[in-house]
This record gives sequence, structure tokens and C-alpha cells, in this order.
Amino acid sequence: MHSVGICGSDVHYWQHGRIGDFVVKDPMVLGHEASGTVVKVGSGVTHLKPGDRVAIEPGVPREMDEFCKSGRYNLSPTIFFCATPPDDGNLCRYYKHSASYCYKLPDNVTFEEGALIEPLSVGIHACKRAGVTLGSKVFVSGSGPIGLVNVIIAKMMGAAAVVVTDLSASRLQKAKEVGADFTIQVKNETPQEVASKVESVLGCMPEITVECTGVQACIQAGIYATRSGGTLVLVGLGPEMVTVPIVNAAVREVDIRGIFRYCNTWPVAIALLASKRINVKPLVTHRFPLEKALEAFETTKRGEGVKVMLKCDPTDQNP
Amino acid sequence: MHSVGICGSDVHYWQHGRIGDFVVKDPMVLGHEASGTVVKVGSGVTHLKPGDRVAIEPGVPREMDEFCKSGRYNLSPTIFFCATPPDDGNLCRYYKHSASYCYKLPDNVTFEEGALIEPLSVGIHACKRAGVTLGSKVFVSGSGPIGLVNVIIAKMMGAAAVVVTDLSASRLQKAKEVGADFTIQVKNETPQEVASKVESVLGCMPEITVECTGVQACIQAGIYATRSGGTLVLVGLGPEMVTVPIVNAAVREVDIRGIFRYCNTWPVAIALLASKRINVKPLVTHRFPLEKALEAFETTKRGEGVKVMLKCDPTDQNP
Amino acid sequence: MHSVGICGSDVHYWQHGRIGDFVVKDPMVLGHEASGTVVKVGSGVTHLKPGDRVAIEPGVPREMDEFCKSGRYNLSPTIFFCATPPDDGNLCRYYKHSASYCYKLPDNVTFEEGALIEPLSVGIHACKRAGVTLGSKVFVSGSGPIGLVNVIIAKMMGAAAVVVTDLSASRLQKAKEVGADFTIQVKNETPQEVASKVESVLGCMPEITVECTGVQACIQAGIYATRSGGTLVLVGLGPEMVTVPIVNAAVREVDIRGIFRYCNTWPVAIALLASKRINVKPLVTHRFPLEKALEAFETTKRGEGVKVMLKCDPTDQNP
Amino acid sequence: MHSVGICGSDVHYWQHGRIGDFVVKDPMVLGHEASGTVVKVGSGVTHLKPGDRVAIEPGVPREMDEFCKSGRYNLSPTIFFCATPPDDGNLCRYYKHSASYCYKLPDNVTFEEGALIEPLSVGIHACKRAGVTLGSKVFVSGSGPIGLVNVIIAKMMGAAAVVVTDLSASRLQKAKEVGADFTIQVKNETPQEVASKVESVLGCMPEITVECTGVQACIQAGIYATRSGGTLVLVGLGPEMVTVPIVNAAVREVDIRGIFRYCNTWPVAIALLASKRINVKPLVTHRFPLEKALEAFETTKRGEGVKVMLKCDPTDQNP
Repeated sequence: MHSVGICGSDVHYWQHGRIGDFVVKDPMVLGHEASGTVVKVGSGVTHLKPGDRVAIEPGVPREMDEFCKSGRYNLSPTIFFCATPPDDGNLCRYYKHSASYCYKLPDNVTFEEGALIEPLSVGIHACKRAGVTLGSKVFVSGSGPIGLVNVIIAKMMGAAAVVVTDLSASRLQKAKEVGADFTIQVKNETPQEVASKVESVLGCMPEITVECTGVQACIQAGIYATRSGGTLVLVGLGPEMVTVPIVNAAVREVDIRGIFRYCNTWPVAIALLASKRINVKPLVTHRFPLEKALEAFETTKRGEGVKVMLKCDPTDQNP
Repeated sequence: MHSVGICGSDVHYWQHGRIGDFVVKDPMVLGHEASGTVVKVGSGVTHLKPGDRVAIEPGVPREMDEFCKSGRYNLSPTIFFCATPPDDGNLCRYYKHSASYCYKLPDNVTFEEGALIEPLSVGIHACKRAGVTLGSKVFVSGSGPIGLVNVIIAKMMGAAAVVVTDLSASRLQKAKEVGADFTIQVKNETPQEVASKVESVLGCMPEITVECTGVQACIQAGIYATRSGGTLVLVGLGPEMVTVPIVNAAVREVDIRGIFRYCNTWPVAIALLASKRINVKPLVTHRFPLEKALEAFETTKRGEGVKVMLKCDPTDQNP
Repeated sequence: MHSVGICGSDVHYWQHGRIGDFVVKDPMVLGHEASGTVVKVGSGVTHLKPGDRVAIEPGVPREMDEFCKSGRYNLSPTIFFCATPPDDGNLCRYYKHSASYCYKLPDNVTFEEGALIEPLSVGIHACKRAGVTLGSKVFVSGSGPIGLVNVIIAKMMGAAAVVVTDLSASRLQKAKEVGADFTIQVKNETPQEVASKVESVLGCMPEITVECTGVQACIQAGIYATRSGGTLVLVGLGPEMVTVPIVNAAVREVDIRGIFRYCNTWPVAIALLASKRINVKPLVTHRFPLEKALEAFETTKRGEGVKVMLKCDPTDQNP
Repeated sequence: MHSVGICGSDVHYWQHGRIGDFVVKDPMVLGHEASGTVVKVGSGVTHLKPGDRVAIEPGVPREMDEFCKSGRYNLSPTIFFCATPPDDGNLCRYYKHSASYCYKLPDNVTFEEGALIEPLSVGIHACKRAGVTLGSKVFVSGSGPIGLVNVIIAKMMGAAAVVVTDLSASRLQKAKEVGADFTIQVKNETPQEVASKVESVLGCMPEITVECTGVQACIQAGIYATRSGGTLVLVGLGPEMVTVPIVNAAVREVDIRGIFRYCNTWPVAIALLASKRINVKPLVTHRFPLEKALEAFETTKRGEGVKVMLKCDPTDQNP
């Protein structure tokens, strides 16, 4: 392994030992945003060889069920997934993974870019499910790491204008840096007021809202804000039960769609990174050698920077 | 005009003078499930001539806005719609309507079948938005008139199995008659229990749920019941704010989609009626001449039968 | 193995030793329309057990490539496929197959229905790619076995009217029996004349044409016949190079789409067969015990009947 | 009127008096790539007022037929279209047009950008029909004005790599300037050889080919070049009958789709131009005042530059 990013879920498992129904019962290796170098391949593997630099897709279906057969393998209930208990992650020095889910990195893509494909994939999957296309107006609710990747990807898919809301001015500044056309710092507005500000800033209601906070009031704002016939994608997860203006969404045919991880995103991301059309390097704000993992996790826990990267190869700590 | 069906919304306007933000401020003609005979056409009309029997689509866009141009004219905010205040309906003897929204009935389709295209259209639009296709397993929540048309249309679109829930055994009996494969009489089950019964009866979770009641517990059951990657369509409308297990839907990528009326359904319905592949005649359980409209409305208000038809042509009271 | 249908391609390999680039170089077992009973399962198999009656999907991807991951595994270039050289088929007594591609048959579905899922799948895949939906008008060109399954499936998917053309009156009679609304016996009409007759019989141009002959003049007729904005699906395969009125198709946005075998069709077909909504039993016109395979192949070669079924289980020769 | 671009079809009508079945029988005003300033509006118009700067969509449906209702108004057979006989175009000083098809230009979009929306629309419609999306590899065949707009739009929609072929090195240079990642100058290669070069340059077969020449060999190359499961869009139009390897396309499920003009593209293009994400200004290589129209047409006829713009407002000849 070369570079492994720390995700909020890693910190959550470390601190709380569970996320919803997923409970850590035995010691578990963390990490699922990863890249490394092939040391050895099985006899049937033809697309990889030792020495190849690869990005690792953390979810590997265990059976060819209806979800896999129809192209939505992320929904397969028996899927293996790095660092979701009881499956071990790949924040370590050496690690074994299905070759079909290891993707060769071109020479002009760094290991860290390879590791960042995982968070990028959340944005790719969300924006694809949202139907972002040429000329879309997009409202991204929340300017954390996931909000930011959605801004990047929405712009890449041809969105004409992206507006981002957040409580934090500094987080909104980051959104500006990665390409947001507009930002709105929210305080104690009602959901309808937020919707109104979004429309005002864009000059029209957005066809697409990508909700990245999971907060009830934000989901409500997302419904009010989205244009009739549009789509609200739920990326952030909050409380199990949420009160929403469902009639408002229904009679305006605003679709509400969630995402579960991602599928079919690694080849897309690698093609984009190789083409130099996308710059994710600024997302990495901290680096620690693997030996200083605790310090790295403390940094993420404190909410500092955007992405903390752990460097697993003692002989190469470069990006 | 020849035959005009009474819809629950007609009764609601009659009794309460409003539905949500739509308020009856001036006297308004009711009726929007209608068929009749062309008496006169404008000079530019080429597809109709006096004497043609026609079904009437009640919604007529007033401007060629973005929704009309992209094929979703039902979402046009300035649309004319029969018997939605302040627009008059067509429960009367003579009536003027845009020729583009009058569809010639073939000789083998009756006036009443023509009038029933309106409620059928709700089912067509809902099942299309749901993505019902060959082999679908479908859960229809609610066995009123709208539930029934969804059963009929889902089967027509190739659904392999349709299960219907309702509180009323007699309504469920009607569902059986129009083609439901299974029915479940619900009482005081929790939403999860309803979902569990639906799965048990079908032998698997349904890919599609069509919710026709608008009741909070039923919407919740619809989410729990729908298979990962499937779709919940909201047809019934209840309270503005509803508490739902949104995370459950989101992380299983169960899409939540509403419908607003319908679009592009009349030609489809006429083709089906002409082909004799669909039998909606049993839906008409009562007929009254226009002069007895009050009696007819009282009948619908009492919830008797399925569809009450008013006969507007004193010289022809046939179906 | 219990029942295995004979396909035209089986006869072709038998007679000519090749189909296009697929050349039989070594002895090869024929057969790919098959059902049987599970004798033994691998240790990881949980959805099947010895004694289960199963239908067999003949194509099994060998690697989890981009096509598999995105739900189009039929396009995987390294796929295993029964009776496509050099892969052996399953016209034999005992046979080993990937459990993920063996589908349990419900008690009310016969082995022969199970074997017929293969030809049905061609119709399902073709009609899905064609976008057949409620109210579609469909033109099926050619009334051989594949034309017939397309008629059956198109009707099942809600087509309002299906018209079939063929040279042979007896084949068209069969189309009528399985549900075609109209038939046209063609002789030496030009492609434009065929298109004109199709429109005349349907009362409008069909949105969808399913071309099952592969003959150049029929493909041309398919283009001329299809309504603007519609789809021509190419199922029949003829000469490699074909001269077609491509501008006519292009400027009317008539899409031309081929199919390669099928994917994700077995669960759909089993659900339909179990629901008794589809009757494929009349397609089986001849049965032979496995020992009389030669006689069976001679029968198919002479073009007699529709589907010839070989019975591989000496203890049970029932349907 | 302010700015009107000259299209190849304008030159063709001027020189030959017809394009296919469209024959100029009476004097006809040319021009359909246009922008201007509103002088007067009808009483029902609310979204425009005198003084507004507008881009003009040249196609205006005359009736609300099935194509209009379903969002594909470009296919409406009775549509009015500027400078398609017998309908007059707008290369003149004053001109009357349906307000619904006049789109207000933001202050930061020039008249010439407004006029260029028409050719841009061909690219938008083609790339939408092609399904260009994030990470797509795209092969654009032909580097004339239409090829160039397809390069621009494909990149805008997130294509990871675009390769363009042409006979002319100078045209390919232009493709590079507007964003093509790779260019291939073709000479007398066979279609298979062209396909092979495209694959070699991209490192894989493109999912999408946009064919902008109409030449038979290029269409053939487009089929051979496109990846299984991909799409070939035919934009260029050549001879009515074309010989193509249809089996090769069919068995690899390569869809062949044409385009007819465009629909629903003006709002998209205006949003992009307003966002400054797209730079079409370099496409304008020549400008002439309206009085020198003949000279302008001669320039286009000689194939000089990319886009020749006629300036119709004697008081303002600015871009």
C-alpha cells in the first residue's frame, strides 16, 4: 500500500465502534481510500502484473446476484467492503484484494490521486444519479469533503452554475476554490428562505439539488429549492426518521433519490485524472507516515483541513 | 358533452370549496373526466370534424414554456385545467376545448370508456414513472379507484405479480376482479409488518410500490417494502409534512417519485381501448342523467360503488 | 438434464461447422436451450440444492470486466457460452454449470417451459432494447420462432397492436395464434410498399420495428416503416454488409439497435411463467428422446413445426 | 436583426435551389443562425419586452402534435423552420418570430454568441443523443464547423478524451484549438484501419462516435471504431443509400442514431455562455455588413475560415 486517505467513517468506527447496524465486534483494520503497487497476482489475472501502480475500489461483490448482473453491484447485500465490519480495510503495508477491483494507474496519475478516487466516486455516483448534464443548475447543500467533490464533478459534467450552502465561511471558501459559482452562508433561515436565496442567486430554481448534510432542515430546503421535474439526491445521512414536505415534492414531480456508495466509477475517474481535466490535489491538506496514524486520525477528528493522507510505504512518502 | 365521471376532487371542491391552495372564489363548473361529440371546429383544425366522438384531456398548457417544450406539459405552472379553480370544468351540455387536446374515439370505444381515460391516465402516468416493465413485482397500496387503475395498468405493462393492500375487504375484492394477483387486508400492523407481509406474499420484495392513500404509515410501509434499487411512486396525497424513514430509502437507492396528473397518456389509452386489451367497463357502477347531478354527487360522497357517470346528452344516455 | 430445445444455430454448426468467425475445430456438444435437475452443488452455493429443478442461462461471464460491472454481461468478450465453439453445450445427460446462472423453477413451471426461456429471452431482450411499452404499435418482420417470441413479449409488455410480415401464410397463421393483431403476407413488394402496408394496417406508423429476418430488403422496409423518433431493432442476422437508407433513418431520428443474445432475462421469464400470464407451451411441436437426436435435428433442418425438444432424462420424458 | 451566421445549407439553397425534397420554388429569405433586438411584442407575451436582446431558435412547431407533446418538437412534420423552403429565414433587417422561441440574452453574452447557439445546438443535440457523459472517450469524424462544435460540447459534458479525424491538417489544427485531445489526419486508410488508429490513439475503443461527414467510408469506420455497447451518432448527411457493416454493429449492440436539427437546446446554450464556461468566439472568422451579403456567401462557398457572420444592424456592427 502507498497512500490511504482517512474518511469520516473511519473516525466514527474508531470513536464509536459502530455506524448504524454495522458494529465492530472484533479488531478491524480501517481504511478504504487507497492506492498501492501490485506485488503478486493470481494465475488468472491478465490485466495486472507486479509493479503496476493501482487504485483500489473497496467494494467487491461476493456473489453474482441480481444486483451485480444488472450493473448495480453496490446494492449487493453480501458485498465485501473495506473497513465496514467485519471486513478489514487496507490501511496497512500489504493487502490482498480482488484483481478485478484494482485499476491500473497511468504514469501521469499519482498514488494520492488514485486514493482520492474513492471520495470522488461518491460525487460521480451522486451526480450521475442526479442526472447532472450540460447546462444544469445545481444546488449543493453542505461544503464538507463530499460537498466539494460534488461541486467538482457537477462542473465537470457541464453544469452551468453551482451554488453551495454551508454554515461555515471557510468551508464555503473552499467550495469557491474548487469551482462553485456561488456560495451562501446560512444561519438560521427557514428551509423556504434557503430555497428562496438559492433561486435568487441562480436566477432560477436549480434542476438538481445534492444534499450532503443529512440535516432535516436541509433536506426540507432541498425539496423546496428544486425545480419542478427535477431531482434531489440525498448523500448526507442523518437521523433514521425525517419529517419532509413530501406533497410538495410529489406534486411537482421532484424525485428523491439516495445513493449507496458507488459503482462503475473507477474507470471514469482514472480517465478524467489522466486527461488532466480535474485537479484534486488541493484536497490533500495533511500527510502522515503510517507510524503516525494516531496523530492523523486526531487531525481528522478535529475537523482540520480537507483530506488527511496516510503514507504506508516507508520508502516512498511522495504524493 | 356525453359522459362525465365524478372524481373525488369534484366532491371535495363541492363540499369544501378548496383543495390546498386552490380555492373556489367564483361559481365554477365541475367535471374533468369527459367525452362528447364535436359540434364545431376552428378554421385551423384538421384532425377533427363535427360529428367526431372525442375524449377530452382536461389539461391544456397556456404557453410553450420549458416544461411543454421538454414533454412534461403537466408541470407547466400556467396550464388550464378543467375544474381546478378558477378554470371551469366540462360537466355541462356544451363546452369549448382546445382541439389539440380532444382525441377522436374509434367506433369500438364507447363514450364512457372515453371518459374513463382520465382516471386511467393517472395509472398510466404513475406506472410509467414507476418504470413498471415485463416481470415487475408491484405493490399497490390502497384499493380505491386510483389503486384499481394502477392494478389494471401494471398488469397491462407486463407486471408478473401485483399485490394490493387496503383496510376494506370489499375494496380488495374489486382489486381481485380487475387483476390483482394477491390482496392483503391490513388492520393495525406496523409499516414494517405490512412490508413483511408484502414480501411474504410475493415471495420477494417488490421492485415497485405505488402508494395511493397518502397516509403517513402507508408511505412508510412503501419505503420498507420496496426492494433495493426500486421505486416508490406517491400517487395519494395526504398531509403536507410527513415523517418517513428517509435513510432507509436513501441507502438502498429506493427512489421516491411523485406524479402530478399526467401527460401523453390519451393516445396510449385509446390504442389500448381500441385493441380490446383492457376492460374498464366494470369500473362504472352508477349512471345518472345530468339533471340528477346532485344525487350523483351524493352517491360518490357516500363512497358507493367505484365510478359514477353523469350522462349529459338527453338524447343518448347509453354507455 | 431434462429438456433441451434445438435452435437454428445448433443445426447450422452441425451442417456447416461454423457461424461467421466461430468455427468448430474440435468435437463439440450442442444445445443451449435447457433445463434439468440439480444433482450436486459446490460448497459456496446457497440458493440451490440437489433435487431443485432449474433453467440454465447458457452464457456465463468469465471475468468481471467493464461490461459485467455495468450490467451488460452479454457483451463480455470472454464469456462462456454453451455450444458456441469452443465451449460445449448441454445437450447431454449430465452437465456442470455455474450455479449463479442456474435459476430455480417454481413447481408450476415445467421443464420445457424452462428450456423455452432461452428463445423467450431473445424476445425479452429485443423488446426491452426496442423500448416496447404501454400502447406501442409494433411491426415484427418475420414469423419464424424468433418473430413469434417477439410477438408474445411485445403483447405482454403492453403493445396495443402488433403486425407481422412473412412470406409464408402458415407461419403467419402461427403469429395469429400467439397474439399478432394483424399479419401481412409479403411477396415481391418493394421495401417502401411493405412500409406502406404496415402503416395502412395499423392506422399509423409503428413506433417500433423488430426485424427478425436479416434480409436486406426487410431491413430497408424496417427503416421506412418506423415512425419518426422510433426504434428499429435488428434481431435477424444476414450478410455482413447491407445497403440501407441511412439518411432516411437519421433525419427522422429512427434509432437502429442490434441485440447480442440477452442479459438479465431469466428471472423475468420465470416470474411471467409462474404467473401463468404467458403460454409458450404451443411452441413445442415435436419431442424426441435424446437417443433420437439425429431424427430431431433432421426435423428442425427440414423447418417442420416451431420448436423441437429433446428429452434427456430416460426416466422422465414429460414436458 | 443584429447578427446572422451563414450555414452550409444557406449556400446550398443559394447554389442549387434545393436540398433533397426541399425545393425553393419562390424567392426565399435565407438565414437561421440569428440574434437581434425585440422591437415589439404581442399582447400575450410576458417574458420579453422591446429592447431585449434575444437569440432566435429557427424551428417553431405549428401544431401541438404527438411529437411536441412528448418533447421532441423537432420531429413535428409541420414545423416552421427559417430558410427551409417555403419558410423564409431571418437574414434581414426586421423579422417576426414566435416569442416562445426567442430567448433573452444575458448582458454578458454577445449577439454573435447568440447567433452561434444555432450551430452549437447541433452539437448539444448530437452529444445528448450520443449519451456523452463523464469520462466518455469520443471519436469525432470530420473537423468542419459541426465537428468542431461537437468537440467543444463533448468536452463540456465531461468527455475524458476526444479524437478527431479529417483529411485536412488545417481543419485538424482548429480541432486542437477548440479542445480535441488527439487528431488523426486520414488519407486512404480503410475504415478498419481508421478504427484501429482511433483505438490506438485513445488507448481503448471510444464509447461514442459522432460522424459529421456523411461519407460512406466514414460511417463504416464509425461502426468499426465504436466500442461494444456504445453509440454512433450520424450528424453528417451523404447519399440516401449507404452500405454499412450492419451485423458488426448489431451483434456488438452499437446503436446507430441520427439527429434532426435539435430541440430544447437554447436555454442550455445560454446558461453555458452566461457562465463563461464555453468560448465560441474564435469560431467567427469573418464579418460582413448585410449589404455585402453576396461577398459573405462567396467566402463561405470557398470554404474559407469557420463561420462567416452577417451584420444586419447598420448602427451596430459589433460582435
